Amino acid sequence: MAVNSPIPVAADLKPVAGIRLGFAEAGIRKANRKDVLVMELDSTATVAGVFTTNRFCAAPVQVCKAHLDGLHMTSGPIRALVVNTGNANAGTGDAGLAAANATCAALAELLGCEASQILPFSTGVILEQLPVDRLVAGLPKAIENLKADNWFNAAQAIMTTDTQPKAASASVVIGSKTVNMTGISKGAGMIKPNMATMLGYLAMDAKVSQNVLDHLVKQAADKSFNCITIDGDTSTNDSFMLIATGAGEVEVNDVDTPEYVSLAEAVTALAQKLAHMIIRDGEGATKFMSIIVEEGRDVEECRKIAYSIAHSPLVKTAFFASDPNLGRILAAIGYAGVNDLDVGKLNLYLDDVWVAKNGGRNPEYREEDGQRVMKQSEISIRVKLARGEASTTVWTCDLSHDYVSINADYRS
Amino acid sequence: MAVNSPIPVAADLKPVAGIRLGFAEAGIRKANRKDVLVMELDSTATVAGVFTTNRFCAAPVQVCKAHLDGLHMTSGPIRALVVNTGNANAGTGDAGLAAANATCAALAELLGCEASQILPFSTGVILEQLPVDRLVAGLPKAIENLKADNWFNAAQAIMTTDTQPKAASASVVIGSKTVNMTGISKGAGMIKPNMATMLGYLAMDAKVSQNVLDHLVKQAADKSFNCITIDGDTSTNDSFMLIATGAGEVEVNDVDTPEYVSLAEAVTALAQKLAHMIIRDGEGATKFMSIIVEEGRDVEECRKIAYSIAHSPLVKTAFFASDPNLGRILAAIGYAGVNDLDVGKLNLYLDDVWVAKNGGRNPEYREEDGQRVMKQSEISIRVKLARGEASTTVWTCDLSHDYVSINADYRS
Repeated sequence: MAVNSPIPVAADLKPVAGIRLGFAEAGIRKANRKDVLVMELDSTATVAGVFTTNRFCAAPVQVCKAHLDGLHMTSGPIRALVVNTGNANAGTGDAGLAAANATCAALAELLGCEASQILPFSTGVILEQLPVDRLVAGLPKAIENLKADNWFNAAQAIMTTDTQPKAASASVVIGSKTVNMTGISKGAGMIKPNMATMLGYLAMDAKVSQNVLDHLVKQAADKSFNCITIDGDTSTNDSFMLIATGAGEVEVNDVDTPEYVSLAEAVTALAQKLAHMIIRDGEGATKFMSIIVEEGRDVEECRKIAYSIAHSPLVKTAFFASDPNLGRILAAIGYAGVNDLDVGKLNLYLDDVWVAKNGGRNPEYREEDGQRVMKQSEISIRVKLARGEASTTVWTCDLSHDYVSINADYRS
Repeated sequence: MAVNSPIPVAADLKPVAGIRLGFAEAGIRKANRKDVLVMELDSTATVAGVFTTNRFCAAPVQVCKAHLDGLHMTSGPIRALVVNTGNANAGTGDAGLAAANATCAALAELLGCEASQILPFSTGVILEQLPVDRLVAGLPKAIENLKADNWFNAAQAIMTTDTQPKAASASVVIGSKTVNMTGISKGAGMIKPNMATMLGYLAMDAKVSQNVLDHLVKQAADKSFNCITIDGDTSTNDSFMLIATGAGEVEVNDVDTPEYVSLAEAVTALAQKLAHMIIRDGEGATKFMSIIVEEGRDVEECRKIAYSIAHSPLVKTAFFASDPNLGRILAAIGYAGVNDLDVGKLNLYLDDVWVAKNGGRNPEYREEDGQRVMKQSEISIRVKLARGEASTTVWTCDLSHDYVSINADYRS
């Protein structure tokens, strides 16, 4: 059960005009589970994405990037996205690229467009060849059940070790017109996105020009998926895709407008919600932790310290145990690589409790206050560096027995 | 039980002329356990050390550094080292510094020397004040049982979450003369030394000049304690101390001599043995893993990749499960931060099994071969980058349920 994150209700997920979703059970890795998702778009749609920075970037990610680059050239608009679970098609060399291209070609033929108008995505085990024949055989079934009101099934179709589907809807009124948006995400392990997460899709019915959407997807990712970590393992397949179907009333073609600001705010908020769902459903998670680093010289050093805390197995196990062994946080700050940090000025808070003052234990700090906060399922760790104005927030979860069980047993 | 690392036999640990060891049960954190160690040196001894780079470096580490710096000035030689377990005296501000200095002053008075001739060390919980009165009260008892043949008790006296004492002896013949050396170490969690580990002491009876010993301690640490990691958590108290008592026959005063080369080789080999003992007794460890990265452009990029693999919770849990889910290793290589790495040229071996060839799955690789190696308790992971001549080796262990249990329960 995810930390304070109820399973989404299908009826709460709003269709987005201009996008239809269909799924299939193709038996990619296991029988009788939804493992293929097709998202078909109106020809008015624009699509933008950010992808993993992992050097072993998966074959479908390479194909996606090439097809998106083509948008700025001569090829037609993106007409569909296709996602499979059960196999990541990463570490698969030339055969993997051929499999991703074959998937696009097969779907293009079924939809009557070019292969370059399809974006492929994969998630699952690395270093095994994609069973492309089974994937292609599942596509007609997915196309058969394409419909606008299919977001809940879509969220289920992209799950791997997730314990529950992740999806949410939102709307924003701009001028007197409404933008409707719905997003889905998946991921519970190998989560430390470094441009985006594996996998997030957010569709809205606004009409947004390609260059504005390219800008918006980066802005939203940097404040949502790029601020979460479960285990520090940046995946080979991370992708966050933003889709503007153009079927609605609102049109945004310039980032220097109040309309863009309103839209960006709403998209970012929904992206954050989807990113938080991933952490709340982190493998074995029992706690949702917000790590806020303030008063830094620049955002870069704040992020170094926040991630150092978020990745420390000692900090994460102490939170699992609800044990206020908070010296472990100081140790993680100390080795974060900020070499001129004056720890004698540093302050540390656990929610409202002032734990460390000027680098040492706060004389007013009482163990029972720390204990009270540690028992909560939502905890903030706030570090004040006293050397500047920059700040950042990173979200993570604890490290439990179940994390080990899930990852020792995955594949078997 | 540590991985392939039997408990040292007391009779195998050779006394080193010029150093005597004594212990006490001072009740620092728990009653009825050895928690104070005093090492008394002949006045001919030279001492050199390397320490943690953690910005939250503990109070005793700060005092040690100041006293060692004093050696190059006017103060007398180091006469004793004192170690307590149960409390790290880190994150304790000015009160912590006062406690470390008070410990030195009390021991100096008992031994009839200056406080600046004492080196203090602490290990245990961070962010709690050192119970200095109990520590000082234990010193007379430790002095009472000082003797040369006390290395086994000394190794026990510095244990915290270690399941067994770590100690070894060696000797090297230089010319026709023998150098005897014995070392002890401790540590099982919060292990990713970044100059040295928490804690290692290696004494030999050679006479070695201060500047030569300063050089040797860095050289030995860089090939031993600086190449191990259990959880990536660089401690606040890491210290590796090299002691040359000067009571033996061999004298080394110049690094550019065959004598130095022989001595350095023997010291480094013993330091590696002590460092490996820490990994073999890593918290919850069931496997001893050697990660060898070869054909890199420089050692720095080899270390980045080796540590990225060694710190990946997904890699570590797969090894715990003996599951050849080796794509996780590729993912860890890919996010190591070597941004121009051409993964299409990379080769990966598990012991003698060629797993990935030119960045993809080796067509000859069979799952059962990977499975066979994964079941072993000693495994080497070899990565060939095909871009240069540099190489490095890092030693680590797996991540098991017991790691979580030990660190969720520590303190309680």
